[in-house]
Amino acid sequence: MTDLVTFGETMLRLSPPGDERVETADEYDVDVAGAESNVAVAAQRLGLDAAWLSKVPDSPVGRRVTSELRQHGVTVDVAESPDGRLGTYYLESGDVPRGNNVIYDRANAAVTTATPDELPTERVREATAFHTTGITPGLSETLFETTRDLLSLASEAGTTTTFDLNYRSKVWDPAEARAAVEALFPDVDVLFTAQRDAEHVLGRDGDAEAIARGLQAEFDFDVTVVTRGSEGALAAIDDEVYEQPTFEATDDHPVGTGDSFVGGFLSRFVDGADVPTSLEYGAATAALKRSIPGDIAVVTPGEVESVIDGATAAISR
Amino acid sequence: MTDLVTFGETMLRLSPPGDERVETADEYDVDVAGAESNVAVAAQRLGLDAAWLSKVPDSPVGRRVTSELRQHGVTVDVAESPDGRLGTYYLESGDVPRGNNVIYDRANAAVTTATPDELPTERVREATAFHTTGITPGLSETLFETTRDLLSLASEAGTTTTFDLNYRSKVWDPAEARAAVEALFPDVDVLFTAQRDAEHVLGRDGDAEAIARGLQAEFDFDVTVVTRGSEGALAAIDDEVYEQPTFEATDDHPVGTGDSFVGGFLSRFVDGADVPTSLEYGAATAALKRSIPGDIAVVTPGEVESVIDGATAAISR
Amino acid sequence: MTDLVTFGETMLRLSPPGDERVETADEYDVDVAGAESNVAVAAQRLGLDAAWLSKVPDSPVGRRVTSELRQHGVTVDVAESPDGRLGTYYLESGDVPRGNNVIYDRANAAVTTATPDELPTERVREATAFHTTGITPGLSETLFETTRDLLSLASEAGTTTTFDLNYRSKVWDPAEARAAVEALFPDVDVLFTAQRDAEHVLGRDGDAEAIARGLQAEFDFDVTVVTRGSEGALAAIDDEVYEQPTFEATDDHPVGTGDSFVGGFLSRFVDGADVPTSLEYGAATAALKRSIPGDIAVVTPGEVESVIDGATAAISR
Amino acid sequence: MTDLVTFGETMLRLSPPGDERVETADEYDVDVAGAESNVAVAAQRLGLDAAWLSKVPDSPVGRRVTSELRQHGVTVDVAESPDGRLGTYYLESGDVPRGNNVIYDRANAAVTTATPDELPTERVREATAFHTTGITPGLSETLFETTRDLLSLASEAGTTTTFDLNYRSKVWDPAEARAAVEALFPDVDVLFTAQRDAEHVLGRDGDAEAIARGLQAEFDFDVTVVTRGSEGALAAIDDEVYEQPTFEATDDHPVGTGDSFVGGFLSRFVDGADVPTSLEYGAATAALKRSIPGDIAVVTPGEVESVIDGATAAISR
Amino acid sequence: MTDLVTFGETMLRLSPPGDERVETADEYDVDVAGAESNVAVAAQRLGLDAAWLSKVPDSPVGRRVTSELRQHGVTVDVAESPDGRLGTYYLESGDVPRGNNVIYDRANAAVTTATPDELPTERVREATAFHTTGITPGLSETLFETTRDLLSLASEAGTTTTFDLNYRSKVWDPAEARAAVEALFPDVDVLFTAQRDAEHVLGRDGDAEAIARGLQAEFDFDVTVVTRGSEGALAAIDDEVYEQPTFEATDDHPVGTGDSFVGGFLSRFVDGADVPTSLEYGAATAALKRSIPGDIAVVTPGEVESVIDGATAAISR
Amino acid sequence: MTDLVTFGETMLRLSPPGDERVETADEYDVDVAGAESNVAVAAQRLGLDAAWLSKVPDSPVGRRVTSELRQHGVTVDVAESPDGRLGTYYLESGDVPRGNNVIYDRANAAVTTATPDELPTERVREATAFHTTGITPGLSETLFETTRDLLSLASEAGTTTTFDLNYRSKVWDPAEARAAVEALFPDVDVLFTAQRDAEHVLGRDGDAEAIARGLQAEFDFDVTVVTRGSEGALAAIDDEVYEQPTFEATDDHPVGTGDSFVGGFLSRFVDGADVPTSLEYGAATAALKRSIPGDIAVVTPGEVESVIDGATAAISR
Repeated sequence: MTDLVTFGETMLRLSPPGDERVETADEYDVDVAGAESNVAVAAQRLGLDAAWLSKVPDSPVGRRVTSELRQHGVTVDVAESPDGRLGTYYLESGDVPRGNNVIYDRANAAVTTATPDELPTERVREATAFHTTGITPGLSETLFETTRDLLSLASEAGTTTTFDLNYRSKVWDPAEARAAVEALFPDVDVLFTAQRDAEHVLGRDGDAEAIARGLQAEFDFDVTVVTRGSEGALAAIDDEVYEQPTFEATDDHPVGTGDSFVGGFLSRFVDGADVPTSLEYGAATAALKRSIPGDIAVVTPGEVESVIDGATAAISR
Repeated sequence: MTDLVTFGETMLRLSPPGDERVETADEYDVDVAGAESNVAVAAQRLGLDAAWLSKVPDSPVGRRVTSELRQHGVTVDVAESPDGRLGTYYLESGDVPRGNNVIYDRANAAVTTATPDELPTERVREATAFHTTGITPGLSETLFETTRDLLSLASEAGTTTTFDLNYRSKVWDPAEARAAVEALFPDVDVLFTAQRDAEHVLGRDGDAEAIARGLQAEFDFDVTVVTRGSEGALAAIDDEVYEQPTFEATDDHPVGTGDSFVGGFLSRFVDGADVPTSLEYGAATAALKRSIPGDIAVVTPGEVESVIDGATAAISR
Repeated sequence: MTDLVTFGETMLRLSPPGDERVETADEYDVDVAGAESNVAVAAQRLGLDAAWLSKVPDSPVGRRVTSELRQHGVTVDVAESPDGRLGTYYLESGDVPRGNNVIYDRANAAVTTATPDELPTERVREATAFHTTGITPGLSETLFETTRDLLSLASEAGTTTTFDLNYRSKVWDPAEARAAVEALFPDVDVLFTAQRDAEHVLGRDGDAEAIARGLQAEFDFDVTVVTRGSEGALAAIDDEVYEQPTFEATDDHPVGTGDSFVGGFLSRFVDGADVPTSLEYGAATAALKRSIPGDIAVVTPGEVESVIDGATAAISR
Repeated sequence: MTDLVTFGETMLRLSPPGDERVETADEYDVDVAGAESNVAVAAQRLGLDAAWLSKVPDSPVGRRVTSELRQHGVTVDVAESPDGRLGTYYLESGDVPRGNNVIYDRANAAVTTATPDELPTERVREATAFHTTGITPGLSETLFETTRDLLSLASEAGTTTTFDLNYRSKVWDPAEARAAVEALFPDVDVLFTAQRDAEHVLGRDGDAEAIARGLQAEFDFDVTVVTRGSEGALAAIDDEVYEQPTFEATDDHPVGTGDSFVGGFLSRFVDGADVPTSLEYGAATAALKRSIPGDIAVVTPGEVESVIDGATAAISR
Repeated sequence: MTDLVTFGETMLRLSPPGDERVETADEYDVDVAGAESNVAVAAQRLGLDAAWLSKVPDSPVGRRVTSELRQHGVTVDVAESPDGRLGTYYLESGDVPRGNNVIYDRANAAVTTATPDELPTERVREATAFHTTGITPGLSETLFETTRDLLSLASEAGTTTTFDLNYRSKVWDPAEARAAVEALFPDVDVLFTAQRDAEHVLGRDGDAEAIARGLQAEFDFDVTVVTRGSEGALAAIDDEVYEQPTFEATDDHPVGTGDSFVGGFLSRFVDGADVPTSLEYGAATAALKRSIPGDIAVVTPGEVESVIDGATAAISR
Repeated sequence: MTDLVTFGETMLRLSPPGDERVETADEYDVDVAGAESNVAVAAQRLGLDAAWLSKVPDSPVGRRVTSELRQHGVTVDVAESPDGRLGTYYLESGDVPRGNNVIYDRANAAVTTATPDELPTERVREATAFHTTGITPGLSETLFETTRDLLSLASEAGTTTTFDLNYRSKVWDPAEARAAVEALFPDVDVLFTAQRDAEHVLGRDGDAEAIARGLQAEFDFDVTVVTRGSEGALAAIDDEVYEQPTFEATDDHPVGTGDSFVGGFLSRFVDGADVPTSLEYGAATAALKRSIPGDIAVVTPGEVESVIDGATAAISR
């Protein structure tokens, strides 16, 4: 039995090395990037038995994704499509004032046609938890329906459902996103949302605590986690609200920070830990990710615990 | 006034360095690749004033293509699209028994929606020659129509029209291709075709000379050039047939050989040279290309002439 | 149940890029290399469910090996040691007259202390086949005993045992090797040996067929496969001898050719195919390997079948 | 008609990757670097039609420069010399306390023999503006004369002349530089100078405003721009003085900051914008440059405007 | 006659490029690293005639070390061993919160069997100074004895002996280290120790000055240098104590800072300079090292003096 | 006492990686290249105590050369010049029909002003042999005189003088070269010349043997070695002529083959071996060089002997 089953799109990420630009670079670094598979990798590396479900083209390009995920021990259980493409995105990074720029080329990916009957739904039913994000239902009408069906069957089977809102303005507009995700919320047990998405997409206001309590009340989540960038995160459960500051971390590799937070949180939460412990694990995993290139948190439990313990960064020899 | 105007799709080519595989490589080399722009670059570098018309996304990815083509002096005159993507292809190369493998990801490129009113058609009317290939009309219904219209208006304006059949089995099947290109042939003055495409797509048989004469007779081309891989090329004009063997060349970088042949041929032909001279220039340019990475013939007139003169490859110092 | 379980040492391979030298290079390419894991990867990629058993240090260096093997789908089931190191080897490659030079740094690797009680022996008992090589018992007295015990328990459990002689002159001398492997032969069902090792280590003479029949007779193997470098391979089974020529292949990446042959052979043989089919698959896998960097045959069934079918290496597009 | 014509030397810049040292590196990154061509590229990318005049050797090394500049859309109109070399410089960069070290190897470059009759002087006459720097007249007696003649004929033709003092202590001493540039000032309309050059070379004192007003008064410039490193810039025009602070920016890639400021300024000023707008554009372009490797500001108008608008550097997706 | 003779182990350092991880990188940068050879290189580059004695395998891997050290002008006088290996270490670097992680693979290096009769002891006798560190006697019983013998014969010959405590927790525990180094102290003239090692290994307490005076008193050193990381260093000599703050420096390349301090100090001290001058030189060399990749201070006297003079890091051109 | 002292120019060689072109590459590999230092390195690595005299700029660029030569153990004894540059050359390599193209940028190198009083002429007097080439006197009038003086003082001191004609058409024309080198011949004991240079520059005809005997007779050399590319070499000494065929070797890295031949020859000849032995060593060293990137023969005596023994290129493990 799998501890955590995830479902979603994973793309090839193409990025010019160092501070180079997409327009002028002669080579691109290749990484594997997907909100749900990022979570699966972090959770697997931190102790869970995690799986990733999706649909990919039956080609070397599709295998570029599946083999990298398997490398981290994640169980890859995907439909392989004779047609369709793999979504890609170009990431360009630079220091101030440039920042990070993402150019999506993800339309018509094979995954956008994935239906439940192509997927190993038994894995979802038998898992302890099922995770997906608000990106997936935005990618196609089919994927909205598949996401809804998977959440529903997980719910029926008693699998805990966790959902990261993860709004992407280059995928859809706030109104579309709100309608879609609110239609899914009845089958969601644990919600993760950035405070800015809660405001911008779900129309919430007030401080983070108010937002968490409001969502909790309206949608009856078991746990509602609100992240606030450099100001840390906060979780509402029953009548309690727990706060977790961020750990000090570089700005070198910010892409994937949020997924690493969720992966770290779930690695403890799905294993039965309480919410404060899970928050702390999530925050430490997110901090480590920021020092690691690519989308994926290549971390170990020992490293996460060192961050929590505040171990210094002196050379260990 | 431009000597040679070309029209077609140009893609990003992503290839693992050296003999690496797409599935396992951590970086891909980035090149710019398009049958018509390859021809434009070769012709420009060899002395013509060449232009490339197309439609690209208004993004760093689109500019990756336009800036590289401009680097070789080609006039880039493209519609920039707020939507749409740039086609890409993955190229994996290996020595025997692996060979070269191409994985296209070119559906829905911005260029597939290009219509004549978006393009600087005055350039076509005023040019000495207009060149496109049998790939372009295969990419979308719109592009078939645009190709037809551009050939037609070139024809009306007295611009010499040149066309490379360039059949791609991953784009369409032979019957579709035949119907489309034969519909375009009435406005074509100079045809380039590989012997295997003439057989497989156009249903021709006999030896290369018979094929050239047969096509000449049926479609009333001014010049019909039939290429035969390592066996060289042959051109029919009026009652004459000229043969041109290949020059000795490595197998290191074969992609783009055909386009370099056409570019080298046109660099002389459009400048008024006779067919045997043009064939020789084409064959020498093609030979040089095989020693140069990427899709593009980064050559000089002096180098082409050295190949024709049979200069030895000793170290020049 | 696993189809094929393998056991042995896997090292980090450090090699200067291109034709550079170990003495002067400023970076080394990193690959993962082990005779038995090479076989496991080839067999897994070609359709079997394969596992690799070993012992590695519990460190990022140990994980460098396990994560790369998992990437190809192999089940990695290893003891993790708090002490001990990972064996490494330096590989320097050059064209004629340099050739390939291997410098081992493998003494005292964690695996040299591996005992059966640290290993998942149930996997061996339940597998269809168990594979190891003549390198493993040469690495330490402990490993000789562990190899013997694993072959013995496999034999008792009815698991087919396969063994590649794989003599390494930098590990031990021929007399030591002969004594050790002949002590293991009673529990071996399928033997692979290079003709030169049969001569040099086992003291055989005559042509390859005579050698195969002689070994068969003396040690009562079910199948005896004798490889002859560029002259192909030959297998004796019952009263039959089958010959298999090599497929044409480059000399670019020869390291790992032999393991790829065994992996390809076993991918069919363990699946129930007859010996001629298995030989052909082995030879085609070996040919493909020679075009692929590293120790590992990153191949697909389709590619192996193309080599068997003699598909040409023209650009496929 | 060209908006902005520039004239000067462009060199190959050879720099060890990352923090490596010239003495020990095994490869050097290759960039194209010239004060005037840097300005032309920035201005072209930001909307002007810009040209660069110079003299380069007729060789692949010369073409290394011209093709990179053409890539950004700049019109390259150069004399090609059968003799002479291309100037190079070695750039070594390191963090504190190392800093950046430049080693010039620019003596006897082909450009040092460039005379007006080798250059397309009609372009200068017909342009809206002509730009050069105080480096050019320091490179040879011939170049001093050519610079003087081009400024003079621009002036006569009604072309606005702009001049960046750009003192280089490795080219000449302050007294030589002062005599030369003051001899050119009568034909200069817009002067750019660093405050430290105004002090050290032109013998000015007082604060930046006093310096600007003093130069304005003495040499009758239309506009006098004084830059003050991290303290921003200031421009005197008629009776007004405008100040422009710098935008926040990294120290990663400082080489080329000054040229980017001038290029950004001219992209608006030559297009008719007022001085405050031009200063702001210059400062934003300079800030962006500091995040981009090489000498050249690979920027877009949208990026410059984002900096001006103070858009945050969060990941845009 | 050599000014400074050093003795100790030098390893290959293997580190993933940039921020990559050992577990996932496909190439490792190769550097040469040894506490004593680092000192020899710094001292040689800063003006001494320095030598390094050791024992290395007679192989390309051994030559990887000796040729890099010779490159800096150091006299390499080593025993070459037909057996044995070269020690290696893996270094993984990352920004906060990751820090630097060292994984040693140094057991059984050829140097661990080095005895005085294999080494050119005449060099030690004839040198002005002899330097080794507290790492060397920790590597094997043989090396403890060899270190003791070399210090003893240096002492007898009137060669100044200098010793850097350099405690390594991955080599031995504090009690073992204390017993060993205290047994060597009678033959040591100049001691270098980090304050934390003095506390942790030698059981000292109080502030740095108290520690220096206490060690001085107990072991009768001529000079006792106590380093305090970012707080600078302090030296006791006779009745005087001199303090030296650190120079401002990046955290980019911290490995080797301590050895560079010692090398810079000795470059002046062995040449006859007083202690304050030597401290200043040491601190400036250490600061420069932090901006330079690898273990070795690739510096020049001019650069060290610029740091001392507080020259700004503006671009020098 | 040095066995072999050499004198000449050494340049930085800048070459695009792989098959890339100078015009389009974004990085150049950096190598150190000089006919005389190439000989010194080969001879040192093969057992002689060799030195290289020259004049280089006192800069990191100059040290780039001296540190790489020292790495191979060569004694570097050079004048360091505050002025002047280091010569460079661009090397572009490609397979057929491209070949190798050299673009020199060597005018005004610091070495062109080197006079005997700047050089350690005692080394020449005390050496067993002194070597230079026909490139050196072609670089400047001063260098012609210095070469003449060094040969003369070597001759007087009883040092064997060896001279490789090494005609460079990009340095001077055949008539100039002939006049210069014939003026030096009276002080030359051993001449190396390519057959084509003997014909083209010295006006010889007939076969290689006739040429060798003719030069021997006219200029009274002790030994006259004539090389014939792939046809091998031949040496005349007294009344004997010895022939040496080439060993089989790749065409991958041909630059430096001739210098490696001379270095290999001298490594034995200066050590007292007879001419046939020296020829064989030279030919084997030259063959190995062709498999090694850069200008320098990074070889060992064992490797040279393996080539002579015809050891196969199978993987040694």
